[in-house]
Amino acid sequence: MASTSLKHPLDPLNAEELTQVSSLLKAKSPDKSLHFKIITIIEPPKAKLRPFLKAERNGTAGPPLPRRASALYYHRGTSDLFLAEVNIESNSVDKVEKLDPQFHGQNDIDELIELRDACLKDPKVLEQLAKYKLPEHLEVVCDTWPYGRDSEDNLPRYIQCYLFARSSHPGSNHYDNPLPISPVMDMITKEVIDIIRLPTGSDATLNHDAVFETHAPKEYHHDLQSQPTRTDLKPLIVHQPEGVSFTIDGYLIKWQKWRFRFGFTWREGMVLHDVTYDGRELFHRLSLSEMFVPYGDPRYPYSRKSVFDVGDIGAGVTANNLALGCDCLGVIKYFSFVISNSQGQPVQKPNAICMHEIDDGIGWKHTNSRTGAVSIIRSRVLVLQTIITVGNYEYVFMWHLDQAAGLHYRIQATGILSTAPIDKGATVPWGTNVNEGVMAPFHQHVFSLRIDPCIDGDKNSVIEEDSVAMPMDDSNPFGVGYVTKNRLISKSTPLDSAPNRVHKIINPSVLNKSSGKPVAYAIHSPMKQMLLAHPNSWHGKRARYAFHPFWVTAHRDTELYAAGDYTYQSLPDGKSDLEGWADRRDKTDDTDIVVWHSISLTHNPKPEDYPVMPCDTMVVSLKPSGFFDQNPALDVPQSTQKSNGSKLVEDTALTIAVGEKDADCCAPKSKL
Amino acid sequence: MASTSLKHPLDPLNAEELTQVSSLLKAKSPDKSLHFKIITIIEPPKAKLRPFLKAERNGTAGPPLPRRASALYYHRGTSDLFLAEVNIESNSVDKVEKLDPQFHGQNDIDELIELRDACLKDPKVLEQLAKYKLPEHLEVVCDTWPYGRDSEDNLPRYIQCYLFARSSHPGSNHYDNPLPISPVMDMITKEVIDIIRLPTGSDATLNHDAVFETHAPKEYHHDLQSQPTRTDLKPLIVHQPEGVSFTIDGYLIKWQKWRFRFGFTWREGMVLHDVTYDGRELFHRLSLSEMFVPYGDPRYPYSRKSVFDVGDIGAGVTANNLALGCDCLGVIKYFSFVISNSQGQPVQKPNAICMHEIDDGIGWKHTNSRTGAVSIIRSRVLVLQTIITVGNYEYVFMWHLDQAAGLHYRIQATGILSTAPIDKGATVPWGTNVNEGVMAPFHQHVFSLRIDPCIDGDKNSVIEEDSVAMPMDDSNPFGVGYVTKNRLISKSTPLDSAPNRVHKIINPSVLNKSSGKPVAYAIHSPMKQMLLAHPNSWHGKRARYAFHPFWVTAHRDTELYAAGDYTYQSLPDGKSDLEGWADRRDKTDDTDIVVWHSISLTHNPKPEDYPVMPCDTMVVSLKPSGFFDQNPALDVPQSTQKSNGSKLVEDTALTIAVGEKDADCCAPKSKL
Repeated sequence: MASTSLKHPLDPLNAEELTQVSSLLKAKSPDKSLHFKIITIIEPPKAKLRPFLKAERNGTAGPPLPRRASALYYHRGTSDLFLAEVNIESNSVDKVEKLDPQFHGQNDIDELIELRDACLKDPKVLEQLAKYKLPEHLEVVCDTWPYGRDSEDNLPRYIQCYLFARSSHPGSNHYDNPLPISPVMDMITKEVIDIIRLPTGSDATLNHDAVFETHAPKEYHHDLQSQPTRTDLKPLIVHQPEGVSFTIDGYLIKWQKWRFRFGFTWREGMVLHDVTYDGRELFHRLSLSEMFVPYGDPRYPYSRKSVFDVGDIGAGVTANNLALGCDCLGVIKYFSFVISNSQGQPVQKPNAICMHEIDDGIGWKHTNSRTGAVSIIRSRVLVLQTIITVGNYEYVFMWHLDQAAGLHYRIQATGILSTAPIDKGATVPWGTNVNEGVMAPFHQHVFSLRIDPCIDGDKNSVIEEDSVAMPMDDSNPFGVGYVTKNRLISKSTPLDSAPNRVHKIINPSVLNKSSGKPVAYAIHSPMKQMLLAHPNSWHGKRARYAFHPFWVTAHRDTELYAAGDYTYQSLPDGKSDLEGWADRRDKTDDTDIVVWHSISLTHNPKPEDYPVMPCDTMVVSLKPSGFFDQNPALDVPQSTQKSNGSKLVEDTALTIAVGEKDADCCAPKSKL
Repeated sequence: MASTSLKHPLDPLNAEELTQVSSLLKAKSPDKSLHFKIITIIEPPKAKLRPFLKAERNGTAGPPLPRRASALYYHRGTSDLFLAEVNIESNSVDKVEKLDPQFHGQNDIDELIELRDACLKDPKVLEQLAKYKLPEHLEVVCDTWPYGRDSEDNLPRYIQCYLFARSSHPGSNHYDNPLPISPVMDMITKEVIDIIRLPTGSDATLNHDAVFETHAPKEYHHDLQSQPTRTDLKPLIVHQPEGVSFTIDGYLIKWQKWRFRFGFTWREGMVLHDVTYDGRELFHRLSLSEMFVPYGDPRYPYSRKSVFDVGDIGAGVTANNLALGCDCLGVIKYFSFVISNSQGQPVQKPNAICMHEIDDGIGWKHTNSRTGAVSIIRSRVLVLQTIITVGNYEYVFMWHLDQAAGLHYRIQATGILSTAPIDKGATVPWGTNVNEGVMAPFHQHVFSLRIDPCIDGDKNSVIEEDSVAMPMDDSNPFGVGYVTKNRLISKSTPLDSAPNRVHKIINPSVLNKSSGKPVAYAIHSPMKQMLLAHPNSWHGKRARYAFHPFWVTAHRDTELYAAGDYTYQSLPDGKSDLEGWADRRDKTDDTDIVVWHSISLTHNPKPEDYPVMPCDTMVVSLKPSGFFDQNPALDVPQSTQKSNGSKLVEDTALTIAVGEKDADCCAPKSKL
């Protein structure tokens, strides 16, 4: 088909292709109404893709690999779930597979709106609400939550509802009024099958006679603040008078020796493909594989409260429409995508990723104190940003690429705490009271960053490096010596952290000219507490990946999601998740491997996190560690006042003036 | 005296005062030549200072407390060291104390230049160098290092020299040519007392017949690069058309509800005093107390290689003259200071601290996905920066103050690796070869951040908080519950880290209205490996503070420096350093305490760190943790495109245009 003839095999599906796929599948089942969950590009198998990408980089590529798509859909109103594969080029359905009934599809917004509406029309729910005696100015809203799991039984696809009350303002904080009942719904019949009374005291005791008690609201929206807004913040503008330093060709980006492609999927959101630096291969694919948010309140039904934000909800479908000057400051490039709705129609995801440059302080500096010669560069960073809203929470996901060949995955958590009702005067040891009647339970966020490396080629290994004090003996008579010890990870396995332990991805066949050791990229990430839930709990069984910070597996095309393909009410089989793949004990030395990093944020709320939470930031860095023979940012031009156009604050009392005439501000100064 | 009548008791000494102090002391010893080490302000005792600062904040202060200064000096050419106290107001010497001969003064640049010159004129040194057969275009330079310590003996004040060769260019990297001899000098006589042959093989064997072997140089200076400079980096300018958001009154700064004073001392460099937020007291004094850099090469004389960069050298005296557009980008306020030289004369330290605002991404955000209402603020940060050059290394020290009442101490290490000669083909397990003949040994940097808190007043305590899984029992039948456990630190002691363990400074008498718990600031810092040297090694004995990441002591005015007042060739007595103070087991609950944080950077060099090292960054955050009832940045104005003036990259192919008309870019969007 003409529409695809020039498209890259990794480019996300466009609107036309999405419609083509859903139309084909609808035509194949004319007697059924299809409820689409996901329609997405099928990336070519790595065995074909890697040579294609290499040839493309060398300018010797043949015709693009064929574009194919997959679709996950229900027969509407049933639990019959299908996975289809479509060849877009030939406009044909290659395969349709009916999935095992234990597997459930993701949530989707069309479905959730129907469920929310049905919940709040249910007579039994209305009856309970009436007994709670809400004041008239408040309306009830329903937040849906994945049901989680609390038994071995294969339950129908359920959803758990938490109810809140809000005022009519569009920015009203409904989390400030959590209600003490929680309906459970069947997602097929859209019926309320149970209404659970939530515990609201200091223990699991239930109070069936609770009525609404008013309290001073805590609102996050600017219109609703009682205190005045600060007036002393002056504008700060980032200006690039000669334009940006990157080039864009479709989804192919080049900037400061970096070259990579964007991808964007319903489930993972932003994906980076085929990342090279100065023509050398680094990473085949970088993606957010999963994210699990378990809550630490031990009481039923909170014991089920947990969500796979990637697998149950999706990081692409929830991507924000980023706004110039608000989400992104400076000179901004936006990328927009399309995803499917439940009808299989294309829906715009405008400005789902933004890209821009920032100044990140000093890159490197040295002053020769004998001669006064100053050498200095500023550090310019390329920022790729996407923000998702998952119910109450916002997550900012960023890649920062620097000029010294470092990639930094930056996660920021913001938004609103998930809240629960609590009686006046009560406290619990697993949560923090953030307003009268409002408790924010402790919880964790465990992200899984999937790193598919190609450090100077496909055959890589992982080593674990520790710094170890030498024993105080003849070879270390003064007791000051220390060395590094390396462990080669020869079989697929989880790996643990230790203070200063560094995990490095190496290419054992390529030696660094300076150090004589295999070229390597190191993963720098602070040591964190991993999943606190018991390994035999359902949280523990369903999110095995969250117990260890690092995992190494042998690459397989189908293994993209750390908690498995189907996380909704998942019943793990011990084979279809990261632990299962690691348990194969595949060879992982000098071969095509994948490294998975579980990034854990233990979030015990504090009052300052409410009613909206200042960004909490975590950074994982992938940095060259013996990959280059010397500092790769050595060729960045010396910083000069001329190019940076900085200004002095006009207060000369304490300042030695450096005027604009000092354009060559870093020239040698007087000798010491 | 008129010159001081309006000065604040915490303001650094000015040139006139410095001259006054040295003149007074010179006049007192007319028959002696004085060699000044340090002349610095004596801060008033805390018992007097705190009420004064409080009254000043309330506008009820009486006359300033008297300004006093201390001076540390030798009788020139002797080892007689004196500490004097001078009352500037009354122009009188209050006290002169001759110090115990075991104590030595810091290095100073006047002295080091003399020693370097004398070393390179020494006939025995010249003889050894002649045997090494350096090519004619290279000149020898001498880097002095504190001698360290290797026995219980009270040696004279020694200095260790490491020699290098360099070309004539002012930016020539002499660390690329480390020479295999190391003279030791007596600092009084300025004589070379020993010339140590450095081990250059894979073990401690010495090669007395080594001659210079040429290799391809690695240079960091832009003039000396063989590869071309990048040409595709476009200017990025930070512009504040309406000026900055801070106000300056002498050394008193106000910005976004913050109020604090700058200090600057010869030894500590930048100091923050009397830090409040929104009128509430947070920190009485924040300073870099010490910094120890021990090397991990076990061989003599490298076993002595170590330096207290604060105590032996000084973080104020080595502060760089920061340059507009190079060290600092944007609209910049500089602060300049004076220090003394060895003659007691004032020496300018121009632009030793810079202050400016940056945009730091998103402050907080929430999208109400029902109504589409977006609430978002950008995060503006106030940056205070000072950069020091200590021989080969540069350190960037920054405080980042944010709008959510967080303070972030940011340390960046850059500059050049300390190098050692190594034979062709040899490798060592305690270092990395970074060029032919050039080995960079493993080492650590352990900083000590001294935190003198006043969280809502003087009487504070420290608690250690851990997140702990509940046992799987009747109160936690599903195995998902977890709680926090707190330990109150009631007596002075070191404290250790654990993953996610948080140390909080609390005021037990002030309860948070929301949580009901004592108001608190938390110290967030990743868990790191502490000092690797053996506790019985001299490194271990001299830098006890470096074995534990946190320490709590009862406040005493005289206890400012974690490794003691006199670190040069120090012989610890078990009482005059942080361990000694902690060992007193003073009450630290609900009283005036000091918290010390040892920040450890284990640096095992990689080829990318050479010939100049991209900044390696560490951040320690002091964040409100139940100090406020709600998000303290709630009143920051909503971000708008109008105030931020961002631009779109002019490529509309993939972009949904957001023009300047969308000034209110975060207004409610269409309903989901």
